Amino acid sequence: MSQNGLQANNNNQPKEGVSSPYMSNDPNSNVANFKIIESTLREGEQFANAFFTTEKKIEIARALDDIGVDYLELTSPAASEQSRNDCKVISNLGLKAKILTHIRCHMDDAKLAIDTGVDGLDVVIGTSSFLREFSHGKDMEYITKQAIEVITYIKSKGLEVRFSTEDSFRSDLVDLLSIYKAVDKIGVNRVGIADTVGCANPRQVYELVKTLRSVVSCDIECHFHNDTGCAIANAYAALEAGATHIDTSVLGIGERNGITPLGGLLARMYTGDKEYVKNKYDLTKIREVENIVAESVEVTVPFNNYITGYCAFTHKAGIHAKAILNNPSTYEILNPHDFGMTRYVSIGHRLTGWNAVKNRVEQLDLDLTDDDSKAVTNKIKELADVRPLSLDDVDVLLRSYHQAKADGSHTHFLKNIETPEHIAAIGAEASA
Amino acid sequence: MSQNGLQANNNNQPKEGVSSPYMSNDPNSNVANFKIIESTLREGEQFANAFFTTEKKIEIARALDDIGVDYLELTSPAASEQSRNDCKVISNLGLKAKILTHIRCHMDDAKLAIDTGVDGLDVVIGTSSFLREFSHGKDMEYITKQAIEVITYIKSKGLEVRFSTEDSFRSDLVDLLSIYKAVDKIGVNRVGIADTVGCANPRQVYELVKTLRSVVSCDIECHFHNDTGCAIANAYAALEAGATHIDTSVLGIGERNGITPLGGLLARMYTGDKEYVKNKYDLTKIREVENIVAESVEVTVPFNNYITGYCAFTHKAGIHAKAILNNPSTYEILNPHDFGMTRYVSIGHRLTGWNAVKNRVEQLDLDLTDDDSKAVTNKIKELADVRPLSLDDVDVLLRSYHQAKADGSHTHFLKNIETPEHIAAIGAEASA
Repeated sequence: MSQNGLQANNNNQPKEGVSSPYMSNDPNSNVANFKIIESTLREGEQFANAFFTTEKKIEIARALDDIGVDYLELTSPAASEQSRNDCKVISNLGLKAKILTHIRCHMDDAKLAIDTGVDGLDVVIGTSSFLREFSHGKDMEYITKQAIEVITYIKSKGLEVRFSTEDSFRSDLVDLLSIYKAVDKIGVNRVGIADTVGCANPRQVYELVKTLRSVVSCDIECHFHNDTGCAIANAYAALEAGATHIDTSVLGIGERNGITPLGGLLARMYTGDKEYVKNKYDLTKIREVENIVAESVEVTVPFNNYITGYCAFTHKAGIHAKAILNNPSTYEILNPHDFGMTRYVSIGHRLTGWNAVKNRVEQLDLDLTDDDSKAVTNKIKELADVRPLSLDDVDVLLRSYHQAKADGSHTHFLKNIETPEHIAAIGAEASA
Repeated sequence: MSQNGLQANNNNQPKEGVSSPYMSNDPNSNVANFKIIESTLREGEQFANAFFTTEKKIEIARALDDIGVDYLELTSPAASEQSRNDCKVISNLGLKAKILTHIRCHMDDAKLAIDTGVDGLDVVIGTSSFLREFSHGKDMEYITKQAIEVITYIKSKGLEVRFSTEDSFRSDLVDLLSIYKAVDKIGVNRVGIADTVGCANPRQVYELVKTLRSVVSCDIECHFHNDTGCAIANAYAALEAGATHIDTSVLGIGERNGITPLGGLLARMYTGDKEYVKNKYDLTKIREVENIVAESVEVTVPFNNYITGYCAFTHKAGIHAKAILNNPSTYEILNPHDFGMTRYVSIGHRLTGWNAVKNRVEQLDLDLTDDDSKAVTNKIKELADVRPLSLDDVDVLLRSYHQAKADGSHTHFLKNIETPEHIAAIGAEASA
């Protein structure tokens, strides 16, 4: 089955079912049953370059809805007049995703938000310093009272409500659990944990979520910043421990270097339960929304982006190229086809191997032996120490070698080629 | 203390010592005692765009040595003639870092490599399919015999030697532990675990490394691909479990979307033990080597790159900006100064807050009240719904408001400004 330029055999599959000795088997795991709260239009708007017009927000909202994310979270209507209007407009688009907005734990903000017609409110305690300092009891009591008042009010209006703290991983554990328990008791739909500064690591996340899971009966949402590179892994650990909802944004945009990226999370979860992810989300549309957002916030999709980065499915080392051609799953955990992408096996460089070259020989339908492929491979390595060859260069080399073989001059032919430019000249002559 | 444009107060520090309830306390942890094997010149050369001349390799090697990485790993001398020569040249540079090259588990490759003058050899079993299929015993015996022969030979020549498998997380656990135990017994310096396809997650990594730690007495090196976003988190989990060495590359370049990035790993480890990291590595030089490599492989440093991405230390939401100005550690786990970077607090947008504006008033030394700052903040939010304002725009607005206050016309002045362009016009007039 040809995935792209080079052919890949799908027979010769390795044994299926040789799974890792340490596949998680947590009783509370939601790795195969999670929901995405897509926050490009809230957290993403806090990205340095983000300035979304109403029209752009609608375009992004529709593209995310096409992928099948469960929720869209919008900037608070208290932020500005346009923000308030955007909540109304997007709530009225008739999307499949539920619409949320993110507000401070104040009655004024709650009232303003309810009037916009959103499906639910994500309530957050305004500053992390509260939780870090309120062990002495008085602030704690005050915060809890305010949270209960706001949550009760939102529920009385029939809206879904989440209550979240900030900087949960640097907070006092007892205070944290106390407030979550209090809001769970009055029927909050979700509690939220946030790694606001990006300091948490996966084993901490697992332990905290597992403990919280034993304290509350409601859903658990998690929000992870990526300052120290753990935002995707933390999301996965949280789901293993029983979290239910993960916050994402397109390309991870948000404050500083951002949060768990939508595409990266889906790549991770695909590894956890491919069928759940493929059936629930349209993975082929990730690229489209990334392009819309990248253009809007004036950034380039990173070269090493998950799934859609231009080298995500490029194989180069000879040893890799050989195995990938025999059986893609040897060096690929993600099937590019499932994401609307294609595989590329690079062969014109000094790390190439003769099996990859032989595969190209077969694609070109040239009658050459393994020894021929090896001879040409050695020439490619020699020339590629000067500069890498294009696939065109490799093809010219192979075809000319094949031609020379007809009169027995192939060894001489190879010896005579001393520079990459020489191949280019032969190619130009042939096509002239 | 001014870190940059906006002033940050360092009094009003929050309580120190409120650590996470779940800080790891593993007996084998090397979070505060790890080594880096920098593989830009080996794994990085397998990145699609990489083509390093000898001169470029020398430049990169020196820049990495300036940071203080413990080892440099180079492409196998068996790959091509230049690769062989580069091993010789770099081994002769007199760098502080030890020089390694990465070879297949063959005597021919070992002999070739030893002749180049490197300090040690990283030996790897050539294909992952071996380990996935050799449960039946015969291949296993063959592999072990070959490994022992090659390792014994390298040791007899006085070189450091590591033995690694590929695709360790999809391998049979018993086979894996058996071969590591066998090579440990004959005195290998390190065994290596590799997540060649990027499928592993942190809790799996922790468990596998912890088990391996109980089986071998030698050092443990780990190599993680980033296809599903766990390469940094996996490295951290491995160190928590007792691994000693982590493979990195600059910007994470390597096969497909690459491996654990050097800068991202250092950000993560800084969070784990700031003093160890700051004392051992020169963090201010990360940016320089990233620029050299990015230019050489013709990529842009990702907008969201760890530490050096242009928004890594930019704060935008009003609530964040306020807290950051009072105390940077509220929303920052990395001190930009330690990395030779500066903080930026963005204020000319619809998510701004009056505390951030007030701080700018103080920097400009304008005599305005809190109510004045609030009035100007509301105007900024209104205008920024049309388009974001530059810091210049905000300054013009504040200075003109201050001037108008002298004759009591400031309220009227604000009311009259209806578009961002109006501010620009005032600014142009003032400087004309």
